[in-house]
Amino acid sequence: MTHHAHAVPATLEWREGELYLLDQTRLPAAIHYEQQTTAEQVWQSIRQLKVRGAPAIGVAAAYGLCVAVRAQCGGEIETLRQELARQAAYLQSARPTAVNLAWALRRMLDFAGRQAATNCNELHAQLVSEAQRIHEQDVALCRGIAAQGVDLIRPGVGVLTHCNAGALATTGLGTATAPLYLAHQRGVPFRVYADETRPLLQGARLTAWELQRAGLDVTLITDSMAASVMARGAIDLVIVGTDRVTANGDVVNKIGTLGVAILARHFGVPFYVACPSSTIDLATATGAAVHIEERDAEEVTGFGGVRTAPMPIQVCNPAFDVTPHTLVSGLITEAGIIHPPFEPGLRRVASASCSHNL
Amino acid sequence: MTHHAHAVPATLEWREGELYLLDQTRLPAAIHYEQQTTAEQVWQSIRQLKVRGAPAIGVAAAYGLCVAVRAQCGGEIETLRQELARQAAYLQSARPTAVNLAWALRRMLDFAGRQAATNCNELHAQLVSEAQRIHEQDVALCRGIAAQGVDLIRPGVGVLTHCNAGALATTGLGTATAPLYLAHQRGVPFRVYADETRPLLQGARLTAWELQRAGLDVTLITDSMAASVMARGAIDLVIVGTDRVTANGDVVNKIGTLGVAILARHFGVPFYVACPSSTIDLATATGAAVHIEERDAEEVTGFGGVRTAPMPIQVCNPAFDVTPHTLVSGLITEAGIIHPPFEPGLRRVASASCSHNL
Repeated sequence: MTHHAHAVPATLEWREGELYLLDQTRLPAAIHYEQQTTAEQVWQSIRQLKVRGAPAIGVAAAYGLCVAVRAQCGGEIETLRQELARQAAYLQSARPTAVNLAWALRRMLDFAGRQAATNCNELHAQLVSEAQRIHEQDVALCRGIAAQGVDLIRPGVGVLTHCNAGALATTGLGTATAPLYLAHQRGVPFRVYADETRPLLQGARLTAWELQRAGLDVTLITDSMAASVMARGAIDLVIVGTDRVTANGDVVNKIGTLGVAILARHFGVPFYVACPSSTIDLATATGAAVHIEERDAEEVTGFGGVRTAPMPIQVCNPAFDVTPHTLVSGLITEAGIIHPPFEPGLRRVASASCSHNL
Repeated sequence: MTHHAHAVPATLEWREGELYLLDQTRLPAAIHYEQQTTAEQVWQSIRQLKVRGAPAIGVAAAYGLCVAVRAQCGGEIETLRQELARQAAYLQSARPTAVNLAWALRRMLDFAGRQAATNCNELHAQLVSEAQRIHEQDVALCRGIAAQGVDLIRPGVGVLTHCNAGALATTGLGTATAPLYLAHQRGVPFRVYADETRPLLQGARLTAWELQRAGLDVTLITDSMAASVMARGAIDLVIVGTDRVTANGDVVNKIGTLGVAILARHFGVPFYVACPSSTIDLATATGAAVHIEERDAEEVTGFGGVRTAPMPIQVCNPAFDVTPHTLVSGLITEAGIIHPPFEPGLRRVASASCSHNL
């Protein structure tokens, strides 16, 4: 980071037994932490994207589960165990596509099942410790991706990214941004182009904001400008994040990623996906099997409360798209960059990862 | 049009010697006509996109020139002729990329040069008549494109369009939309997908609005969703408009068009460009020679008047991009659909067109 740069604020904090989430829907206008006190509040925070980004959602859900069951800590331990299962299913329903949400909640339940605790407070304290381990592992995954991907950032390159797979999408350096932050720390000069990422503008509000705050050279473009910027030769590689990578290497990520991958192929630009092992879903064979969350029409017909389209109007609003593995140059994991064919490499990384459940 | 459909409001009106422009920046919230009384006002209306769309800009500029020089009608005719040249150059500077603006103003000046009028009022009346002929020809061009392109709209197809090359971009049925309106009149069932078209959202505010108003089946998507919609097989052809087609068939059009063309090629979807002969620029060999207007950063850093990006932030904001002719399946002109190689067909159509100046 340069001398003048500000740190990116933490996505979440666990402080004196309480969960605080940075409300990302208010960025960049306000840096506001919202204390989470009920399961419903955590569900809404995930649903409304106050916390978003696959890795951050996983950590938030792990802590969120601790918050959600706290009211049962005064009773029988069996009641607490039942409540854990019930609240985990409830929290998981907030966002069906991100594999980390299901992964973190499953890990918390499995962990609870293995604990011989005989009273609620003991089990609850153990659950908090497990959530903290998930948190620490997320930070370590980001550092690992930074180390594996940093050599892609050669001096003078232009890098395009889509959505926010940044520090704000994780509890560490980010995934797609991790190699960028590390290269910048090492003094490598390069330029980043950030797609604004309609409909929710995570690229403009979050990626451009956090990279600029950290002192990187970042230029904001609309999603529709990516082709034009590539055509003039300004982009040497693309790095995006992912919400789920299936066993064959198909990449489920923010809507618009598929288009960027097709443009990259057209212009001969390498297309990389930052993929912590926690995002690998070996249980799903291909992207075609992934349920894609369809979100509210209001996200497309306006922004920030300003309506721009005629009412009523038919709208499509898939939150994600599937980039076929054939368009992917490499998957940057904390254990190395996986090149095609992806399946053997994904199995190797997933099985080696202590953080993975498969 | 169906029984329930509303007509699309006229882009402009010349009424009792006065020019009224529909303020498209206020659509769809308000249908407001603004009387134009000075050259500066007409320049600003073009610059601020109150009137936009290559054909409509040409007609507006022709009438606008009549408005701009009216103050000189009380003096010497030579003063009026000098003022015509001065104001034409001024109006042309409002938008450097659209060829119709230069074309219409050049045509008005050439026309004035051929008139033997000896007093200002006579010359001014002749200029108004010429502007009205440009207006009538624009309506006829749209009808011609409708007739030539209508057979592309087979029953059940899905059509993607980008930006607004609709009735609101012309003074008639539109260019890209003309075949759609005619097919709909004939009872052909089909579905249109409209890219919202960041940064200024002409697709959401104008295309979705005018097509829905006319009773067509239209679905609004963000620009980033086009790849996803194509991947699920919902798009059978793309039709867009153009601001300028160069001699080799390169297409200058709204930013984002190039990306749509690359996606169409990737998915094997035909990519058509509605191209009235007035938009053909034989004097420019290829798209590489076209100056691309760069617009204000504020268009990208905000959305519908709401600021969404951190300030200050570096921004790219090219208003147009260049789609190479190799990605174009056909150019729909009022004299027929031109297929590759484009240059002979473009020369034939341009030379046959009474409206063209080359």
